[in-house]
Amino acid sequence: MEFLIDERADREDVDVIVCGSGAKLGLKQCETVTKLMISQNPQFVILIGPAQQAPGPKLARKLLVEAGIPTLVISDGPARKLRKDFETGSVGYFIIDADAMIGARREFLDPIEMILFNSDMLKVLAITGVLQLITNEIDQLIQAVKEDAPLKLPQILVTKEQAIEVSSLSNPYAKAKAMAAYEIAKRAATINSQGCFRVTEWQHYTALVASGHELVRDAARMADEAREIDKAGDQVKRSPHYPKGVVGKKVRLIEKPRKVKQET
Amino acid sequence: MEFLIDERADREDVDVIVCGSGAKLGLKQCETVTKLMISQNPQFVILIGPAQQAPGPKLARKLLVEAGIPTLVISDGPARKLRKDFETGSVGYFIIDADAMIGARREFLDPIEMILFNSDMLKVLAITGVLQLITNEIDQLIQAVKEDAPLKLPQILVTKEQAIEVSSLSNPYAKAKAMAAYEIAKRAATINSQGCFRVTEWQHYTALVASGHELVRDAARMADEAREIDKAGDQVKRSPHYPKGVVGKKVRLIEKPRKVKQET
Amino acid sequence: MEFLIDERADREDVDVIVCGSGAKLGLKQCETVTKLMISQNPQFVILIGPAQQAPGPKLARKLLVEAGIPTLVISDGPARKLRKDFETGSVGYFIIDADAMIGARREFLDPIEMILFNSDMLKVLAITGVLQLITNEIDQLIQAVKEDAPLKLPQILVTKEQAIEVSSLSNPYAKAKAMAAYEIAKRAATINSQGCFRVTEWQHYTALVASGHELVRDAARMADEAREIDKAGDQVKRSPHYPKGVVGKKVRLIEKPRKVKQET
Amino acid sequence: MEFLIDERADREDVDVIVCGSGAKLGLKQCETVTKLMISQNPQFVILIGPAQQAPGPKLARKLLVEAGIPTLVISDGPARKLRKDFETGSVGYFIIDADAMIGARREFLDPIEMILFNSDMLKVLAITGVLQLITNEIDQLIQAVKEDAPLKLPQILVTKEQAIEVSSLSNPYAKAKAMAAYEIAKRAATINSQGCFRVTEWQHYTALVASGHELVRDAARMADEAREIDKAGDQVKRSPHYPKGVVGKKVRLIEKPRKVKQET
Amino acid sequence: MEFLIDERADREDVDVIVCGSGAKLGLKQCETVTKLMISQNPQFVILIGPAQQAPGPKLARKLLVEAGIPTLVISDGPARKLRKDFETGSVGYFIIDADAMIGARREFLDPIEMILFNSDMLKVLAITGVLQLITNEIDQLIQAVKEDAPLKLPQILVTKEQAIEVSSLSNPYAKAKAMAAYEIAKRAATINSQGCFRVTEWQHYTALVASGHELVRDAARMADEAREIDKAGDQVKRSPHYPKGVVGKKVRLIEKPRKVKQET
Amino acid sequence: MEFLIDERADREDVDVIVCGSGAKLGLKQCETVTKLMISQNPQFVILIGPAQQAPGPKLARKLLVEAGIPTLVISDGPARKLRKDFETGSVGYFIIDADAMIGARREFLDPIEMILFNSDMLKVLAITGVLQLITNEIDQLIQAVKEDAPLKLPQILVTKEQAIEVSSLSNPYAKAKAMAAYEIAKRAATINSQGCFRVTEWQHYTALVASGHELVRDAARMADEAREIDKAGDQVKRSPHYPKGVVGKKVRLIEKPRKVKQET
Repeated sequence: MEFLIDERADREDVDVIVCGSGAKLGLKQCETVTKLMISQNPQFVILIGPAQQAPGPKLARKLLVEAGIPTLVISDGPARKLRKDFETGSVGYFIIDADAMIGARREFLDPIEMILFNSDMLKVLAITGVLQLITNEIDQLIQAVKEDAPLKLPQILVTKEQAIEVSSLSNPYAKAKAMAAYEIAKRAATINSQGCFRVTEWQHYTALVASGHELVRDAARMADEAREIDKAGDQVKRSPHYPKGVVGKKVRLIEKPRKVKQET
Repeated sequence: MEFLIDERADREDVDVIVCGSGAKLGLKQCETVTKLMISQNPQFVILIGPAQQAPGPKLARKLLVEAGIPTLVISDGPARKLRKDFETGSVGYFIIDADAMIGARREFLDPIEMILFNSDMLKVLAITGVLQLITNEIDQLIQAVKEDAPLKLPQILVTKEQAIEVSSLSNPYAKAKAMAAYEIAKRAATINSQGCFRVTEWQHYTALVASGHELVRDAARMADEAREIDKAGDQVKRSPHYPKGVVGKKVRLIEKPRKVKQET
Repeated sequence: MEFLIDERADREDVDVIVCGSGAKLGLKQCETVTKLMISQNPQFVILIGPAQQAPGPKLARKLLVEAGIPTLVISDGPARKLRKDFETGSVGYFIIDADAMIGARREFLDPIEMILFNSDMLKVLAITGVLQLITNEIDQLIQAVKEDAPLKLPQILVTKEQAIEVSSLSNPYAKAKAMAAYEIAKRAATINSQGCFRVTEWQHYTALVASGHELVRDAARMADEAREIDKAGDQVKRSPHYPKGVVGKKVRLIEKPRKVKQET
Repeated sequence: MEFLIDERADREDVDVIVCGSGAKLGLKQCETVTKLMISQNPQFVILIGPAQQAPGPKLARKLLVEAGIPTLVISDGPARKLRKDFETGSVGYFIIDADAMIGARREFLDPIEMILFNSDMLKVLAITGVLQLITNEIDQLIQAVKEDAPLKLPQILVTKEQAIEVSSLSNPYAKAKAMAAYEIAKRAATINSQGCFRVTEWQHYTALVASGHELVRDAARMADEAREIDKAGDQVKRSPHYPKGVVGKKVRLIEKPRKVKQET
Repeated sequence: MEFLIDERADREDVDVIVCGSGAKLGLKQCETVTKLMISQNPQFVILIGPAQQAPGPKLARKLLVEAGIPTLVISDGPARKLRKDFETGSVGYFIIDADAMIGARREFLDPIEMILFNSDMLKVLAITGVLQLITNEIDQLIQAVKEDAPLKLPQILVTKEQAIEVSSLSNPYAKAKAMAAYEIAKRAATINSQGCFRVTEWQHYTALVASGHELVRDAARMADEAREIDKAGDQVKRSPHYPKGVVGKKVRLIEKPRKVKQET
Repeated sequence: MEFLIDERADREDVDVIVCGSGAKLGLKQCETVTKLMISQNPQFVILIGPAQQAPGPKLARKLLVEAGIPTLVISDGPARKLRKDFETGSVGYFIIDADAMIGARREFLDPIEMILFNSDMLKVLAITGVLQLITNEIDQLIQAVKEDAPLKLPQILVTKEQAIEVSSLSNPYAKAKAMAAYEIAKRAATINSQGCFRVTEWQHYTALVASGHELVRDAARMADEAREIDKAGDQVKRSPHYPKGVVGKKVRLIEKPRKVKQET
């Protein structure tokens, strides 16, 4: 995530510090890491993780709000229920239904399976435009900081239509495939959550989470197929950053990007 | 990386703190983040990143060694030249040739292309066994900490043979394909570094880094093909962690893992 | 459908008459065709079609029930709401969520696109076991007729677990892929119904139904992938009928089927 | 087939009644069903099925001709020998060599394998243009009925060139692939008929019909590949019907169809 | 071809001389090359090429027969008509229907397209067992020469059944796919010969030969798919030669071949 | 190779004689064959084969140079060391790194595996442009002979950039994929040579050469993918020869080639 706004590490107008608590989101871990983060005096903080309704992440948000640090949450489907909470706390958010929960059952999930799931998930979020949507908004926050303007934290329940609109895709069938990929990933969320929370018979839940991971693998394949279509038409849209944070735009592979005047 | 040793976030014997400086590895950024890390008083630190020969990462290692914190570096091919350095400093290391440099040219690399590259790279490292190799070694470090035994930091120049040996793969053709995927990723490292550092004509370097990313995409496809072969034979090896850190082993999908006595 | 119980047209114990009203399900069309059917004096009738809540199919059921002909409805997801209706009328049913509604928008659906959708849908229903489930139940109805036993009409809301249980699949990953295919097809039902009934802006609904058809195409590909896995293991289960209606079972390709004693 | 001329069930100018005898084409079955059909007083009848030279279908044609009902036969390769017969009886025909006979051997063909074969066959006939050719001709018959003009029943031995000419395909390589798909399906007809009628050793004929079905599966994959090429170029031709039976034409996905003046 | 019997160039019991006239088979070219060959005093000659009925190859056979050199012809489908000729002349032969004629039209065939066709053709002949069949027979001829036994020249009209019997394939579905690949290649022969000799309108023949090459490309893909299935089961049969010409057999990848006693 | 300059065997301005020693390149074999060749009094000779540093090929070159026959060597990577040799002897050369050594280990390589490797290798060399580069140069030599001009033998260490420049490819992503295919094939050379010459433990070298062949199979797949992209855009460049040796150019499939004035 931290690379999205500085993909070639040559951007002079922004510095990032990343802190995390690994896979765990317990009260203690979240407190430690949030305090670390606050101690760095950041201009704004992006809080990324599932289970925003759990005590750990809740405390993290509370600490950040109390410290007066503008906070943007990026989370998955279950965070829908917290939207009111976020809004009363002036917390920004991206809620991404397609960012499916993993199939966290010991009979199935080992470190390798987990990495493969994340690899596939990343591909889906990148190609369907979700990550571009987030990049665009964060770029605007940075721009506001640079101009000493008030930060307008985005509060977005991501839809596939919004995402695909800002994605790299051009061909209408590529977009239809990307939309399908998005829906498949979203469906995996439901299946994995059934397998993790509702089904208790082990043979059954193992089969379920295995099919949840097949769904995400398939969504990645479909998203990849969409991008390949645009490669075939030499019409992959690209938006690299310049050192001052300005965004470039280009479409043909062998073509220089044109600078886009930064919105302010 | 931090998820490798606690893939279902239910491990009670280990706590992780992650700190990072985003995409940048300048002197200032590395210093800030390393000091943050040292302030947490960790039992050992894993330092992950490219460009270990650059001043930033060099300083980070120096600070950690001076603080007396056991340090394990995980880096890519160019770190080969630092092996002596690491060894004199009692720094552990994993050097992974297949962890290719990205095609960091503005005409080609935007945030989306970067994520896709990382997604493909992750898939290759996971399936070829590289990440399992690392997981195994870190599990041993944690075990040593728990037993108050002296830490034996691994110093490993990863080879494809070592990696595939501990991978999830069973079928010999699947292993041959994974070996091929490893080599393709390694080749991408060479091509991308040509495109980034040696070629100056922009049409030429854009074409080169584009082919470097095609190589990594292809390596991921090949690795995926290898794993699918083992799915077809229902012989994907899995090694999930138990809450006390013990590792389980299983091969059939519908089968319970058996606990493996932890080596001490 | 009519071929499911007599796939090689050599079954001596059963005769089928098919009547249909084409694509339309208006009152007049349903009445004509149902009367035709009743005039043939069948021992039971299978009523297949979407929109069971519409006046046409409703009348058809009424006429059949009044004529005292045992009736079995096979329909898609929206028929869920009619289950009570069916049950009070002693009408049997199979409700198949995965049998997705087509993307019936003039900007998208022409005769060819319609055939392709049906082709893909058939593949999904065949491989995931849905059609085998139906075949099994109809075989039992026929057997009951032959034995002058009372007909026990099945009332089944098909689940993917039930379907896959009786499918031809053996390998557990093949089953996970088939389950995923089933879920994708089910998702297509939601997307197509959004595109047909809820979205009114034409560019938007055209994109939506296009992605609905991509989902079904993808579900078919996934189902096919599942069957190919079992071909690779030479473990495709087959259940051909014998002339007297008895079912045979076999697993290896080059192997004779063994007759299974018909349940009564 | 009945859906080809009214794919969205909104056509006001035509009503269809379908009658069938299931998989069997015996004398009795054909007689019953044909009489049912004649009793409906149709303006013309389309008789679809293999084995037109067998007594059942022969009787069906005789009854229809005697009843003075214009009749159009759609059948497969073996019907070539009946062309003279059809012509002396003023019976229209489409003979489709690519509509391959199924591999009807009990060791191989069960209900699921049969559905898969039909699914693949449908895909081939749809994409190569065969079904569009038929749709066009039936639309003209309907138009003639509406204008009280004399019916000119088509008498067509379908060639791949004719079919591809009216297909949805634009790209010349897509057409070459579709042509290849057509030829592969045609070849499956030969192989399946060898496996069903000429070879008597069971291991041999099982292997043969299995390869016949692989051919049809492959033909469907090839046809699908052809259509995907045109998706990549956003040049899939579509011909939806309007409620009055007029045909629309369009090429880009996000584009409204234009009405084509109906030929009279 | 010359490598088939000495694939690692370590066979001590045989020496090969290859002579060819390039693409042309005119009288003059065939005479020159045949005389060259005769001057080398070989123990037997293998004559490979299409158009055996043309004057050039005919003369070549005549010269070889007159020189008393045992001759084995390897040719394609059209050579079927010469079988009597071969037999009266005591000439051995392999006739391979699947070895399709190329699409030799200037609008389509350039050097690259030709190489691709040959590459695909080779793959089909190798995987379906045709080349193994030939290798086996030539090995027997060599053995006879070594034992001073009379040469029994094979006279074989290759069938797919014979070829697949000696192929490397184990899985029955892999064999069905290979059989299908064989039939597709054979079909390409018909299409290409239509495109080259019977159709004169250039747009038409260009489309035809393009589809002929798609058929061969597809046959190669299908054959490859068959071999991949056997890789997945680790059951690819291999038959390497030992330096003395003895043949080894093996099935698992990581396994030493066992020497097979040479038949004499 | 001999077909590259006369792909439809209708070129009147050139005659080719091919002589070869099979798989072996021993002193005796090379001498015999070279003398045969010299006896034919050719206007120039093309010497194709690996191991140019071995005594056999070395003698062949010596004999040709002594006979005053202009000689062009086509060989693989190891020939790089002989460039000085070639140049002092006025011998022309093409050195092709991507033309990988085969995995010549008895545990792996049998006649079928060898053919498959060559089939894949041919596909890579054809699509990446290497064979077009060679064809172009030989066409110029022939032209020089026809004009009695002095022969300028090419001395070219083939690069992927040079090759792709003259290839049939148009789309820039297709070119990037072809470049990647070239690099993968080149990498296979390294792996196979490790497997054949450096590793002595048989399980290890068998695995290595198996992965070398997977690399070449993958390179062929990638090259094929590149060409398919250009088919999708109907922009495959073709360069057929006319009977007088003139080259034609075309891009659309359904289009006549235009004659290109031969350079002299």
